[in-house]
Amino acid sequence: MVDPTPAQTDMIRVELGERSYDILLGSAILPEVSARVARQLGMTHAVVITDDNVETPHAICVAESLSDVDVAVDLFVVDAGESSKSVQTAERLWQQLLDANTDRKSVVVAVGGGVIGDLAGFVAATYARGLTFVQVPTTLLAQVDSSVGGKVAVNLPAAKNMVGAFWQPSAVIIDTRVLSSLPHREYVAGWGEVVKYGVIQDADFLAYLEQHVDRILARDDETLRHVIARCCRLKAEVVQDDEREQSGRRAILNYGHTFAHALEAVTGYEQLLHGEAVAIGMLCASRLAESLHLVDDSFTARQRRLLSALGLPVDAPRMDPQRLLESMQQDKKVAHGRLRFVLPVRMGHVELFGDIDPQLVRAAILG
Amino acid sequence: MVDPTPAQTDMIRVELGERSYDILLGSAILPEVSARVARQLGMTHAVVITDDNVETPHAICVAESLSDVDVAVDLFVVDAGESSKSVQTAERLWQQLLDANTDRKSVVVAVGGGVIGDLAGFVAATYARGLTFVQVPTTLLAQVDSSVGGKVAVNLPAAKNMVGAFWQPSAVIIDTRVLSSLPHREYVAGWGEVVKYGVIQDADFLAYLEQHVDRILARDDETLRHVIARCCRLKAEVVQDDEREQSGRRAILNYGHTFAHALEAVTGYEQLLHGEAVAIGMLCASRLAESLHLVDDSFTARQRRLLSALGLPVDAPRMDPQRLLESMQQDKKVAHGRLRFVLPVRMGHVELFGDIDPQLVRAAILG
Repeated sequence: MVDPTPAQTDMIRVELGERSYDILLGSAILPEVSARVARQLGMTHAVVITDDNVETPHAICVAESLSDVDVAVDLFVVDAGESSKSVQTAERLWQQLLDANTDRKSVVVAVGGGVIGDLAGFVAATYARGLTFVQVPTTLLAQVDSSVGGKVAVNLPAAKNMVGAFWQPSAVIIDTRVLSSLPHREYVAGWGEVVKYGVIQDADFLAYLEQHVDRILARDDETLRHVIARCCRLKAEVVQDDEREQSGRRAILNYGHTFAHALEAVTGYEQLLHGEAVAIGMLCASRLAESLHLVDDSFTARQRRLLSALGLPVDAPRMDPQRLLESMQQDKKVAHGRLRFVLPVRMGHVELFGDIDPQLVRAAILG
Repeated sequence: MVDPTPAQTDMIRVELGERSYDILLGSAILPEVSARVARQLGMTHAVVITDDNVETPHAICVAESLSDVDVAVDLFVVDAGESSKSVQTAERLWQQLLDANTDRKSVVVAVGGGVIGDLAGFVAATYARGLTFVQVPTTLLAQVDSSVGGKVAVNLPAAKNMVGAFWQPSAVIIDTRVLSSLPHREYVAGWGEVVKYGVIQDADFLAYLEQHVDRILARDDETLRHVIARCCRLKAEVVQDDEREQSGRRAILNYGHTFAHALEAVTGYEQLLHGEAVAIGMLCASRLAESLHLVDDSFTARQRRLLSALGLPVDAPRMDPQRLLESMQQDKKVAHGRLRFVLPVRMGHVELFGDIDPQLVRAAILG
């Protein structure tokens, strides 16, 4: 538990027993809250991991704030982009940590989007059998999703997130101000995951999003704080119930993701941003739910309208559905080779369905 | 908890809440107990990982026993030796698991010595964020130490075990019969870790070893079962107290190991077997304890006599002590750059001492 927060910082607690932590959320809070977290964790040595897009100004800002409170800081910069989420980059970072005399009291601070959080988190989880780890997500997608919940990983060439761990951060620092400089496409992509929370857990939240599209596109700070806090609370609820994806509850977060991961793999992780793939994947899953008579076509149309209004892609790129299907067989949720999908049954509620006919999956991809 | 055991199998429970597991110990039990564990774990797909020394007959024996109870088995063989405990080998295995359509219901079975257990365990801990894992240790060292307790890792070129996790097996199968074919040097090396348990936890056990050197060297089956069971119980006690090396209690298992890891690193992991390095390292640590007036020289002499009688090396190879010291600075137990050592204060009891003068460490190496 960190200090009582100043008025401008929201605090969301993720209750996981001895692995509990706070998400600290506010606008232009990065310098002050970084220093506060450093004091709370008794930080003496920090390894800040970032990419060359985020290094200036955000990672530098965090590094300087830590230095100001007498933390020794090493800053390691990887290339921006999904290709850095690899075993090779992890190996280079492990070696850099060793060269920096990193020990079990050192803290890894990830400053960046989902790629950096997943990569730095995996390195933190595995270096010296586990280092304390702080997430400073700088994209909308990372702020609402990947920085919370402790999933960390790198990709194998043909399989996203295949090598990884559950490793909870000790704090998550979310500064909405950093979103003002996010490139348009990346900003928009993040809304794929936001819409997901509405569909899987919270019909009221989906309605709120439908009513606030203009403010969302204008990057209105109040709207952003409200939305991100809601997403973090919704995700925390699920993670608290099922930290390690064992009861099946956590699987609901994968709505649209079996399709999305396969879309990303088949297109070489280059053509689609993750949030874009999720938008397309949710519509595939929704059509699959239609074909099983779980929802009607207006249910899919509603999601499509909202995603489209937010500027997200809603149709899969041209490809052989068979390739997508084969890629899905390697998804981590496949049990004994059988295809399982998280599918909606009404707005705000999804369930896991097993042993789905590949014929229906193919039809859902084609739309 | 596995089935009630037949008369010839000892069962030692490691109590770790939801991560509890049984160590199953006996002579010539491999086929029967492998099949039993497969049934208990509901195994349908096993990935057996072994090395080219152990593949025939032990890994083949395990694989066939699993096939006999209708488990689909993939067998992956790595080169024998410490050099396989690398990021590169782990990466190759991750890819092989992917190619074998390994999923979260698959079970990794490690058949081999400490290298295989650590490597396969690390791969199991990180593939798809964690697979169920069974240890079948085939060396004395692995049976008494590395297969129990959940430490898994690979090496970086300059730092042993630097990349790893805590990942508990779901069962450990110890067949003392496999020790009969172990090469002499490897068999002897294992006794380094056995003697360690006496020094750190159990003065009576140390006396027992002193009294049974002849039977030990003759590989007497009854003696082996008694010794291995005692070591597993002693280790389980410590691991139960401090699974993740947080309270300091588990650190006692590292008696001699700060020196040993540095000896192995500086000699390129080729010259000394781990158990041999531990034997030398314990004597270094004991001399360091002498210089701090924790024990007298007869304490060191007693360990030296026993280790020597068992055929273990007792003097460090010629090298610059400064290089060893620098390697120790990178040990995972170094907190904020200060040297800490597990040192004996009386037979059967050790403690962790911090901030040790490097001058004394250098002197202890030279002997």
